[in-house]
This record gives sequence, structure tokens and C-alpha cells, in this order.
Amino acid sequence: MDDNRGDGAAQALAARAAGALFAADRAAHGAGIELVSVGPGEAAMTMTVDDAMLNGHGTCHGGYLFLLADSTFAYACNSHNQRTVAAHGDISFVRPVGPGEVLTARGREVWRAGRNGICDVTVTDHAGTTVAVFRGRSRTVGGPVAED
Amino acid sequence: MDDNRGDGAAQALAARAAGALFAADRAAHGAGIELVSVGPGEAAMTMTVDDAMLNGHGTCHGGYLFLLADSTFAYACNSHNQRTVAAHGDISFVRPVGPGEVLTARGREVWRAGRNGICDVTVTDHAGTTVAVFRGRSRTVGGPVAED
Amino acid sequence: MDDNRGDGAAQALAARAAGALFAADRAAHGAGIELVSVGPGEAAMTMTVDDAMLNGHGTCHGGYLFLLADSTFAYACNSHNQRTVAAHGDISFVRPVGPGEVLTARGREVWRAGRNGICDVTVTDHAGTTVAVFRGRSRTVGGPVAED
Amino acid sequence: MDDNRGDGAAQALAARAAGALFAADRAAHGAGIELVSVGPGEAAMTMTVDDAMLNGHGTCHGGYLFLLADSTFAYACNSHNQRTVAAHGDISFVRPVGPGEVLTARGREVWRAGRNGICDVTVTDHAGTTVAVFRGRSRTVGGPVAED
Repeated sequence: MDDNRGDGAAQALAARAAGALFAADRAAHGAGIELVSVGPGEAAMTMTVDDAMLNGHGTCHGGYLFLLADSTFAYACNSHNQRTVAAHGDISFVRPVGPGEVLTARGREVWRAGRNGICDVTVTDHAGTTVAVFRGRSRTVGGPVAED
Repeated sequence: MDDNRGDGAAQALAARAAGALFAADRAAHGAGIELVSVGPGEAAMTMTVDDAMLNGHGTCHGGYLFLLADSTFAYACNSHNQRTVAAHGDISFVRPVGPGEVLTARGREVWRAGRNGICDVTVTDHAGTTVAVFRGRSRTVGGPVAED
Repeated sequence: MDDNRGDGAAQALAARAAGALFAADRAAHGAGIELVSVGPGEAAMTMTVDDAMLNGHGTCHGGYLFLLADSTFAYACNSHNQRTVAAHGDISFVRPVGPGEVLTARGREVWRAGRNGICDVTVTDHAGTTVAVFRGRSRTVGGPVAED
Repeated sequence: MDDNRGDGAAQALAARAAGALFAADRAAHGAGIELVSVGPGEAAMTMTVDDAMLNGHGTCHGGYLFLLADSTFAYACNSHNQRTVAAHGDISFVRPVGPGEVLTARGREVWRAGRNGICDVTVTDHAGTTVAVFRGRSRTVGGPVAED
């Protein structure tokens, strides 16, 4: 994806954009989401499923799995320090998730051209088993994420 | 969709299933989601966007819009009192949503056969303008939602 | 959707745009797709499944079901006589389709704002049973479909 | 994905399943689709856009791009010689494709468990530029593709 991956400047920019985004990201904070890593076109985040995230079936509400995946998508696609928003997201719930589970989401852009991008995110449990598979479509709206 | 729509027994069953589901739905309670109405194959819910739902861009996090839509989907597809879970959901974010906005989601099954179903949900703001368009695919897993 | 539905001028425009589009639509002709009806924001088309459309399992290839649904989507979203293209489409194959089946696709826009739109299409067999459920996302690219 | 990738027996099985599927795949033959390679959980196919594939805008109809991607998906997910069908497919059309273009689709399973799988396919033009991005969800229905 990124011909500049591994490039120190691109990595520094990704870290700076993520820092600015995370400082203001109340939804992520409220859900206890933490940023594990970020790089050009990629990001990883974790979230622990607490009781307040359970649905009427006693498993993690799909909305919280989406919240984690969508957040990871946001950090990956804003990593070029150009303000980018989600236009569309879809998620397959492939395994129920119980309370107390520690989830990790890993995302990376799989395509980007002009103002449009596609980013794939996989959510796994503590054992590394996939519980959800997400794909997001983004649109760059102009302006930097982090000011100079 | 429902040949029994308007049927009092089907309506009573939907209300009973929704009641059982809502009593245990901690995720919905935590987000302040309220059930407006439920019927055979359909449901409506509301949620007010509070500051804790904002993302790093200062607008409602897509995860919370998904949470509202996905919840509405759950109540619509569990309305036949057969335990049904989400297999897949997709959402188009068509308009940014600011803090304080009162959102309404209206969902209805558009197809159902055997254990599979498809449910469409539209999320509108206080003025009735569409802010998100959701489609969910469900799978019935067996057993009742509300016991007799 | 259309505040002007039933409006004679909007209906005439839809018919004119569809005529121009269909005259040049070699893919539709090749598959024997016929336009049943068109109106502001909606269209219906039919296709008979011939042996050349079968896949290795002996049922209608999903690509041909998509072709029919995507075509119907195109006529619905070009009905305002503004050149509009598909950005994204998704389809659920809910029932296998055998050779000789006469399929009907009915589509209508469910949302439209600015240059973006969402259109839903349902494909049914001769008995009216749903075989595929499609949703398309469109983008208006400028210019008329039919010149004055 | 496949712990047995590179395994000679798994590769031979994939080739045998693909051979059986392709022999009966009239839709692929009709569109001039050719199988480039197949392996456990993956496949590549090519198709040349001829005039009969053009839509009313003069570009390759999305239905034919989907046909190519969906076919590649089918060969990837049937490569374990268990009859598998498409349940859902979605495609982003990211660049218009003109007549005469030689397209290549490369697909691989990104997740599989029990009877369900997810397969990603990217379609590129002769220059290697991405023109469409596809994701398919499959369901194994029982029985072998190629008999012993």
C-alpha cells in the first residue's frame, strides 16, 4: 500500500496524527479502548469487554465490536495526517464474545486513491481466534488531523 | 413481510420478546437507548448523542450510530420470539451528527426464510433527516427469547 | 423519496433517460435483460436464465444475478437524467436459481442527497419468491444521460 | 489461513476441484474467463473486456466485474474440494474500465471456520492498477466438488 512504509517521517506523522485524534476521542476513552500501535496506513487497538457492553443475549453487543473495529479503521486511515472520515463500514460477527474477553483489532488500508480508501480490520480474542471481520470505506475531507 | 401484521397475538409476542430482551440489554441501557415501539418484524428506538459518544473529529462516533441501528435490528428480528443473532451488518454514514442530537432508528425485516433474515434500519435526526442507513443479516439460533 | 413521484414531467424524464441508457447498454442486451418499467427513482427489469448463465454447480451464476440487479439499480438512479454510476454494490444470494427461470428485479432509491444515493433491489422468480437482495450505492458524476 | 499451504496434497486437491468446477462452468466460458492459478484457499483468473460487456455509459458493466470477482471467489473457496456456494458478495468499483482491457482477479480466503468463510478478491487492469475490490461470504453445503 504505502511505498513509504518503514519511512521514519511517515511513521512520525502517523504517530502525531494518532496522538491528536486520540486526545479528543471520548468514545474510545469511554469504552476503554487503547491504541497499541500505529503506522502509515495501519493501526492496532485493544478493548476489554466489560459487563456494560453485553446485549440481551449475554454476549458482547455487536455495536461495541463495531466501535472497536471502526476506531481502528479511523486511526489507520487518518495516519497520513489528512482528515478522513468513514463513509461505510461492514462487519461479520463470526463468533460470540463473552464478558471479560480482551480483544485486539488490527487494521490496514488495502486500497487508497484520491480521496477514497478501503481498510480491513480483523478483531481477535485473547487466544488469537478471529471474532469479527470488518471492512471500512473512507473519504478524505481536507485539512490536517494534527496541526504543525 | 408479515402476513400476520396487525394480528394481536403476533403483536403481543413481539412486545413480550422485546421486554425480555430489553431487561437484560446492558449495552442499550448504558447508551441511553430507549425502545419506542416494536411489532412483528419491526422496531423503533431512540438515543441522544452525549459528549461521551464523540470521536476525535468532534462528531458522533460511527460505533454509536451502529450500536443504535444494530440494537433496533436486534429487536425487529427477535420479535417473533425466536432467539436470533446478527451475522453481518453494514452501515452508510451519510451525514455527520453533532452532540445533543436526538436520533431515531426505525427497522423492519425485508426478507426472512428458514433461519435467515435481512433487516433494514434508517437512522434520522430530530428533523427527520437521514444520517445513517443500515442493513443487517440475521440468523435464528433456536430457543425462545421470552419464556412462557 | 421522490416528492415529485406521479409528476408527469419527472416520469417523462425517467423514460427518456432510460431510453438513452438502454439504447447503448450492450451488456443488458447480451443477457436478454428487458426494461419493464421506469419512474423517478425506480425501475424494474426481467431476465430469463439460459444455460450460458450456469456456474459449475449447475445453478445461475451469481454474476448474472448481480448483473440483473445492478442494471436495475442503474436505471433507477439514472432516472433523474443526471449521469450516475455505481460506487458499491452488495448482494445476498438467498435461494439457488435453476435454468429457464424468469427473474424480475425491482429497484427503488431509498436515500439520495447531493451526489450520493442508495438504491435497493429485490430479485424474485416466476412465483414471486425472493432469490437475491441487493443494495447499491451510487455517485452522480455530472452531465445528462439523455441530451435535450 | 491454510496451515497446509505448500502441501502437495492440498495443492493437488485444489487443482482437481478447480478442474471439475471449470469443466461445467458455462458462465465463465461464455465471458472468456480463464483460470490462471489455484491453490488451497486461493485462485487467480483473467478476463478481457469485450464490447458486449459495456453498459450504457460505454464502460465495463459492473455485472461483468462482479462476475469475474465472484468466479475467482468460487474457485478459491471450493479449493478444499467441499462444495461451497456464495451467500453474499460486495464490490467497490474504484475505477472505470474501458473496452479491450485485460483484467486479472486474485482471491484468497481471509477467514474460514466450520461451514463459513470470507474471501477477498482484488481486480486489477493490465498495468496492475486496482479497478475493483470484492469480498465474498461463503457457505459449505456438503459433498465433494470433484469425485474420487
